[in-house]
Amino acid sequence: MGLPQREPATDLPERVTIYEVGPRDGLQNEKSVVPAEVKAEFIRRLAAAGLETIETTSFVPPSWVPQLADATEVLADLGDAGLGPRRPVLVPNERGLDNALAAGVGAVAVFGSATETFARKNLNRTVAESIEMFRPVVERAKDSGLWVRAYVSMCFGDPWEGPVPVEQVVDVCQRMMDLGADQLSLGDTIGTGTTGHVSRLLDALDAVGIGSDRIGVHFHDTYGQALANTMTALRHGVCVVDASTGGLGGCPYAKSATGNLATEDLVWALDGAGVQTGVDLTSLVQTSVWMAGHLGRPSPSAVVRALAGSD
Amino acid sequence: MGLPQREPATDLPERVTIYEVGPRDGLQNEKSVVPAEVKAEFIRRLAAAGLETIETTSFVPPSWVPQLADATEVLADLGDAGLGPRRPVLVPNERGLDNALAAGVGAVAVFGSATETFARKNLNRTVAESIEMFRPVVERAKDSGLWVRAYVSMCFGDPWEGPVPVEQVVDVCQRMMDLGADQLSLGDTIGTGTTGHVSRLLDALDAVGIGSDRIGVHFHDTYGQALANTMTALRHGVCVVDASTGGLGGCPYAKSATGNLATEDLVWALDGAGVQTGVDLTSLVQTSVWMAGHLGRPSPSAVVRALAGSD
Repeated sequence: MGLPQREPATDLPERVTIYEVGPRDGLQNEKSVVPAEVKAEFIRRLAAAGLETIETTSFVPPSWVPQLADATEVLADLGDAGLGPRRPVLVPNERGLDNALAAGVGAVAVFGSATETFARKNLNRTVAESIEMFRPVVERAKDSGLWVRAYVSMCFGDPWEGPVPVEQVVDVCQRMMDLGADQLSLGDTIGTGTTGHVSRLLDALDAVGIGSDRIGVHFHDTYGQALANTMTALRHGVCVVDASTGGLGGCPYAKSATGNLATEDLVWALDGAGVQTGVDLTSLVQTSVWMAGHLGRPSPSAVVRALAGSD
Repeated sequence: MGLPQREPATDLPERVTIYEVGPRDGLQNEKSVVPAEVKAEFIRRLAAAGLETIETTSFVPPSWVPQLADATEVLADLGDAGLGPRRPVLVPNERGLDNALAAGVGAVAVFGSATETFARKNLNRTVAESIEMFRPVVERAKDSGLWVRAYVSMCFGDPWEGPVPVEQVVDVCQRMMDLGADQLSLGDTIGTGTTGHVSRLLDALDAVGIGSDRIGVHFHDTYGQALANTMTALRHGVCVVDASTGGLGGCPYAKSATGNLATEDLVWALDGAGVQTGVDLTSLVQTSVWMAGHLGRPSPSAVVRALAGSD
């Protein structure tokens, strides 16, 4: 199986942490329910391929995300392999945190919005109300010794509001980080962002004291921009990148495509540029092919298609 | 139809020339022959969408590329719109140049290889022999007042030889440019290149006097790297980018995918970053949809899928 020629880039970090979102963000929109044991095996294979940080599942009400109603079962199947500070789970509120704590997790993530419309649609609250909802979640998580991530979605464009002002995004990010989170994840939820926009947002966050060392980036490839935007963020000193193995997270053949950056395409870019990720690309591609078999359709990842074939 | 939010990037050229390769490189591998009048209309629509430089066709022997056997017919249909220095045609040898001159073209391109294996497979010659074959083509073209481009393919990886040493690529590029060509196009024909590699090659070319002002870049998206690599080249001062409207040039769903960078995805990136291209994205997407109708399958361009839908 081919691997990229290594030609080190001088303007990138030496090492990048890939924050793997496939099992949670990737699977959550799949219509046919993936059995808990397949999810657990997916996570084990991802870890075996060298992914150190994997968001495993979500403790949201089953009616919101039926696909992830088996969070407790998945974690039980994983045992210790599903716990610790590198196995975050998404929690929407205090009840979710209670369930996560009961499962023994070592890290949680909350999921906010930079725009009022998406906050209303996704959380049924204003941005301010959602932050107040997260406040006790983050405080109690920190008090319990957990690592905490704060997602902020719609940081670039919003399907209802259009372009999202950078100042508005910075304001929400500050309020989310003021809760006490360890890491911020900047989401380009609809994939419209471009490189100058990425630079401007990172500069603006840096100016208010949220440096690149506390930031992860989460780009969607809906307009083909995810990897270019990611590389721009890395040049700004960001060292955490969200990606989804096989590009799971939205059908690439549909108008509503919201596919995450494929982990394999990211690893190809970083391997080639001499950036360490700890990931074995061959194992990862094999894992994608295995998962694609369970989902019954080929992976949209270019690297998976090129290396494993889908014809 | 959506357009990207404009947030100027400070590290990119003010203006980029898109060298549109869809009608030639994009169509040449299509199995079902596209009628000459459709090709001519495709070129007219591309020009109307604002693409100033369009490679229209190829004067290769019909047995090599049956799809482009109608070069003379396409140019006759286009009339003056198919001529001039911004409407290059590919010519493999002197006979091709004769035909191109007879058609009245104002620009030609020759297509060399950085590797011996591909030179042998594509041109049935060694690299040295192919350069000698191009010598009278370039000389006569320049004597006739034509603009001349020199493609060098396999500049990053080669499917038979593997990684291609930068020094070898630089040597071939020098010999091609020494023939008297006006512009060099660096081809990542199999799409394996990454950003550090792009930087290193451009630096090495600059060191031997082939500056970014004479270089175009031609990336394939086989491994999802085309746009990231292109943006790296632009940061090095390159201002000419090869792209194919709709991502024509290889089936994205097949193992052998060799799709060109989609012009729409490039324009999205550049529009967003405040880089002028002169291209109207909405018109371009409409042109891709129109062409996809003729080809009977959806465009692999992410932007076309997102804006025009394929579901």
